Amino acid sequence: MNSTTCVRTLKQKNTSTILMNLRQEMKNAGIGIYVVFSDDEHGSEYTQSYDKRRDWITGFRGSAGIAVISLRTAALWTDSRYFTQAEEELDCANWLLMRNENENVPKVITWLVTEASETNWSVGITPVFTTGLWWFSANNALREIGRQLQSVDDLVGRIWPSNERPKESQQSIFKHDLEYTGENITQKLNRTTTELKRLDVSATIISALDEIAWQFNLRGTDIPYNPFFKSYAIIYTDYNIRQPKLFVNLAQINSSIESMGVSLLDYSTFWSDLNATVNDPTIRKLWVSSQVSHAILSSIPDHKLLLPLLNSPIERVKAQKNSVERKGMKICQIRDGIARIKHIGWIEQQLNNGKSINESESIDRLIFYLKQQDKFQYPSFETISASGDRAAVIHYSPTRATARSITKDKIYLLDAGSQYLDCTTDITRTHHFGTPKDLEKRAYTRVLQGVLEIANAIFPKGTYGRSLDYLGRMYLYRDGMTFGHGTGHGIGHFLGVHEGPQSIAFEYNQFEEALVDGMFISDEPGFYKPDDFGIRIENDMEVILANKSPYNNKQFLRFNTITLVPYERSLIDVTLLSKVQLNAINQYHAKVAKILKPLLNNDEAALNALHSRTKPINRPSVITKTSELNNRALSIIVSSKLMTFIFIVLLLH
Amino acid sequence: MNSTTCVRTLKQKNTSTILMNLRQEMKNAGIGIYVVFSDDEHGSEYTQSYDKRRDWITGFRGSAGIAVISLRTAALWTDSRYFTQAEEELDCANWLLMRNENENVPKVITWLVTEASETNWSVGITPVFTTGLWWFSANNALREIGRQLQSVDDLVGRIWPSNERPKESQQSIFKHDLEYTGENITQKLNRTTTELKRLDVSATIISALDEIAWQFNLRGTDIPYNPFFKSYAIIYTDYNIRQPKLFVNLAQINSSIESMGVSLLDYSTFWSDLNATVNDPTIRKLWVSSQVSHAILSSIPDHKLLLPLLNSPIERVKAQKNSVERKGMKICQIRDGIARIKHIGWIEQQLNNGKSINESESIDRLIFYLKQQDKFQYPSFETISASGDRAAVIHYSPTRATARSITKDKIYLLDAGSQYLDCTTDITRTHHFGTPKDLEKRAYTRVLQGVLEIANAIFPKGTYGRSLDYLGRMYLYRDGMTFGHGTGHGIGHFLGVHEGPQSIAFEYNQFEEALVDGMFISDEPGFYKPDDFGIRIENDMEVILANKSPYNNKQFLRFNTITLVPYERSLIDVTLLSKVQLNAINQYHAKVAKILKPLLNNDEAALNALHSRTKPINRPSVITKTSELNNRALSIIVSSKLMTFIFIVLLLH
Repeated sequence: MNSTTCVRTLKQKNTSTILMNLRQEMKNAGIGIYVVFSDDEHGSEYTQSYDKRRDWITGFRGSAGIAVISLRTAALWTDSRYFTQAEEELDCANWLLMRNENENVPKVITWLVTEASETNWSVGITPVFTTGLWWFSANNALREIGRQLQSVDDLVGRIWPSNERPKESQQSIFKHDLEYTGENITQKLNRTTTELKRLDVSATIISALDEIAWQFNLRGTDIPYNPFFKSYAIIYTDYNIRQPKLFVNLAQINSSIESMGVSLLDYSTFWSDLNATVNDPTIRKLWVSSQVSHAILSSIPDHKLLLPLLNSPIERVKAQKNSVERKGMKICQIRDGIARIKHIGWIEQQLNNGKSINESESIDRLIFYLKQQDKFQYPSFETISASGDRAAVIHYSPTRATARSITKDKIYLLDAGSQYLDCTTDITRTHHFGTPKDLEKRAYTRVLQGVLEIANAIFPKGTYGRSLDYLGRMYLYRDGMTFGHGTGHGIGHFLGVHEGPQSIAFEYNQFEEALVDGMFISDEPGFYKPDDFGIRIENDMEVILANKSPYNNKQFLRFNTITLVPYERSLIDVTLLSKVQLNAINQYHAKVAKILKPLLNNDEAALNALHSRTKPINRPSVITKTSELNNRALSIIVSSKLMTFIFIVLLLH
Repeated sequence: MNSTTCVRTLKQKNTSTILMNLRQEMKNAGIGIYVVFSDDEHGSEYTQSYDKRRDWITGFRGSAGIAVISLRTAALWTDSRYFTQAEEELDCANWLLMRNENENVPKVITWLVTEASETNWSVGITPVFTTGLWWFSANNALREIGRQLQSVDDLVGRIWPSNERPKESQQSIFKHDLEYTGENITQKLNRTTTELKRLDVSATIISALDEIAWQFNLRGTDIPYNPFFKSYAIIYTDYNIRQPKLFVNLAQINSSIESMGVSLLDYSTFWSDLNATVNDPTIRKLWVSSQVSHAILSSIPDHKLLLPLLNSPIERVKAQKNSVERKGMKICQIRDGIARIKHIGWIEQQLNNGKSINESESIDRLIFYLKQQDKFQYPSFETISASGDRAAVIHYSPTRATARSITKDKIYLLDAGSQYLDCTTDITRTHHFGTPKDLEKRAYTRVLQGVLEIANAIFPKGTYGRSLDYLGRMYLYRDGMTFGHGTGHGIGHFLGVHEGPQSIAFEYNQFEEALVDGMFISDEPGFYKPDDFGIRIENDMEVILANKSPYNNKQFLRFNTITLVPYERSLIDVTLLSKVQLNAINQYHAKVAKILKPLLNNDEAALNALHSRTKPINRPSVITKTSELNNRALSIIVSSKLMTFIFIVLLLH
């Protein structure tokens, strides 16, 4: 099938039988082309094994990728983060690898249209696994050739033998206590339905698992890295009269959850209940998120749908955290900080003792320290532990078989986050345990300047993160550097490590919402030199109130950096820093040292790692470097000791 | 009709007869509600008197405002820039003033819907005077109550007696010589049709007057401040086979223009030709700008319309100026600079001699100096000459009767631009001829810091001006200040002083396009304290190539500030400036002095004004001010003389 010669490797599964069975199901369903997404019904960022349909039919296990099967060919689209993995895992005898962004590679929808017009086959999609927006785009493209998408059942589910398919999670759902959530369900319903009233809708249908977990103060373990449980919800604006409906696998519910003023219904009854709801004459308008599946979107009659599509009402309410959540988000950064500095100390000790550590062992040791921390649950995403040139691969994760060594002559990038009962974290530090190269220092410092400029921003209420993005890049730009990812993403509270509706990004996103106090957001510029090294520094920040304008009473906002892990002193080129920036680094390090030092007990390696990184950095007495693109003026800036001296000289002069 | 008591002042015309006649025409046309815009058929920013329909029926002469007449009431919507003027000029006995942005004032479309539903009257609009987008919004709103907009003829034109109506401009159209344009018509057609080919369209219909003037290297004097002539054009992608059609009043054409490879047709034949064009089977797709009138947009069958609507192909081609245009744009800034510094010198001399000058006299004197400059034509917009608290009115223009005095104890803001044969300019300076108050200095310096930060930006190709907007505001934000207008707008070449598709603005605009080298754009942060003072500083800049990235070969861009008028030294608070900013000011002033000084001959007042403003500003030897919101570190920065001294001390130490 694949025109290039292909020898299937041991890492690649043989998908011939799967494809044969799937094509039979396609014929039975009356289609000749079928699209299989990696998403579950809830658009989850991570999915449980039971839902990894695309992985099962292709062999490719990367998180992003779309498979398209026609009766004559099969192709997988993925992006550059996953090219290598796809080359290794995809069954090359049956599948074409379509490298997104490569010039000669058509986009999925373009390819669908071409294949459909060449063959006259119908194109089918299972509407629970794709968003209404994707369906709309594909359907519009097909219409240009006089065709339309056909809705089909989950065909992969039909052919997946139960003895091969992982079991669906049956773990218990548990209550998230008021001491962590700060609000009971009624208080949260009040906030959510205030939004519903504002836009005069009768109800909202929720399919995003983080939103349901937050709304009902419940957590689960159905999804890796995320404390979610599979569920749907319908919330009525008059929730005092009509109880909210929560659709879950009832087998996962225990008695403590039953009496919470919510109508608990089995997950399997959601679709019939949805049908009854949309046809209920007392329901005038329904608010659904722009991210719900096409199955939900298309079930709502046009005249009952709130248009234009917006973010979910819960997404925006949840993003503005209450005082208890805010306290949790800040206090558990101390725990992550302790684990991180112990971990750095341990690496330094190992390397100084001539012992070898690889990227996977480093992760194991970090988890060891994290597990010592109160309320720690598990990592909030797959840890990125990358040595040397691997750090230039933005979403790299080592496997035990291929893990590289961490050494004194290479960059080591560690992007790790935690789920605690009282928060979620996401912290990146780039380390060097020896003497870095000049370019590594320069790039690190440029990235750090971006981190500091974002953190230092002051802006009026109503400002979008996209207006601040340039601050994260401006110092990199002076050296012709940039980075191909966002500068910041929202962070949940014992929920997803990525959440909206806020972000700091270069591109316009119509669903982005303005920053408000109580939001949490990452600050993570980077720089990646392929096959050489990569730098990223990521702090978590809280959006807080600044002053009101004395001129028009307008409320200003700013950021409070909550992460407590020192920067890598050996990678800072102090000659590039402004006085304000150097001062910000020293102030931050003084704070980190003050908070962490008393908590490290007798861990000498950690104390050394902390001390060596957080002692004040002095400005060289005379800076003579004028190499900046910025044409920075020659400046004489002197340390505080010298300052006193100059004062005396001036007095005498 | 107006429920509040109203005594018509001498400034207000009696519109009773006009409204009576207009309502009769409305009845004849079968409508009960009629909307009158201030636009001409071409969406021009300025209109000739002949087209000031809304002014004539209301008495209100402000440039922005929409009149709505129903059979029972009449109302004018305008924005805060014009509230005072509307209160003075609008015939209060017949018209309600609807203050846009005020809380209890409905938007025009909301009001239309309410009036239509209360009365059952039809709503009519003359589709040549409004954009398709406005029509679409209004029509959608009416549809919600089961109604739709009705297209009617120009009813105001019908009732406007020819003896009262100003004559339509009949001035000759003239060629814009190759020495200024740098490209002949064929070269420009080649650039325009390359765009048409890129999107695979057959032709484009152009109604924007600046686009037609640019495309055909012609200029006119039909429109105040703009060298435009009323016209339409149709350009075919195969322009070698099908000549472009230019629809103008043939009486305005002289023989030199006739033989330029363009089909010259009378303006009155445009609509029938358009009809033939859209029905021509060889025309598959048509590209029209999102800003064309509803009359044009609705004449194109859906399947022939290029969707989504974009900017005009000419707008984007024209914005990227050729080398001759770029040279013109830069060289004529010298002429504006000479006139401005002579003007400042004159004001200073007058004030020093105890002579009084008012805002209007100041404009007259500026025009006097501008007229001495080679190739000067006329101002590029109505000059803003504002003393003291008037400077806080963003679009203030004095009248001779009400002009305020310019004095030594007040801010004086002058925003003036010129049309030259080889360029268009737009320059704002805020002056103070005595000792400013601390807050005035602080605000001026914050505004200046914004100007400098924008000018200093470096950014990769593909960056939108909106990503840079924050730079113009960040220093203001630290003091709780901001400004309610854009930070920068595109500038034409002997064309409009405002042009797209580039801009630097806070708000997202779907029609904004990325910055490319050869674009010209203003850099104009400001601060306005109502009833006290206003500050604005505006430079014109060229977008130029910076380096390519050594990492991915990505082209970077930056700005070249081309305006040559000194900043106001007395208003600069040097303690707020960074070293880089101070250096930028000194470098700029050295350049301005070097270029202008030899050209001021023996104008002692101008030379004094130039010298006092452009001599180097030294940093105070020790800065002790730490009042900044920014929590700026205490810094010791020393002058170059002291630097040498310290070196010696250090050597001895």
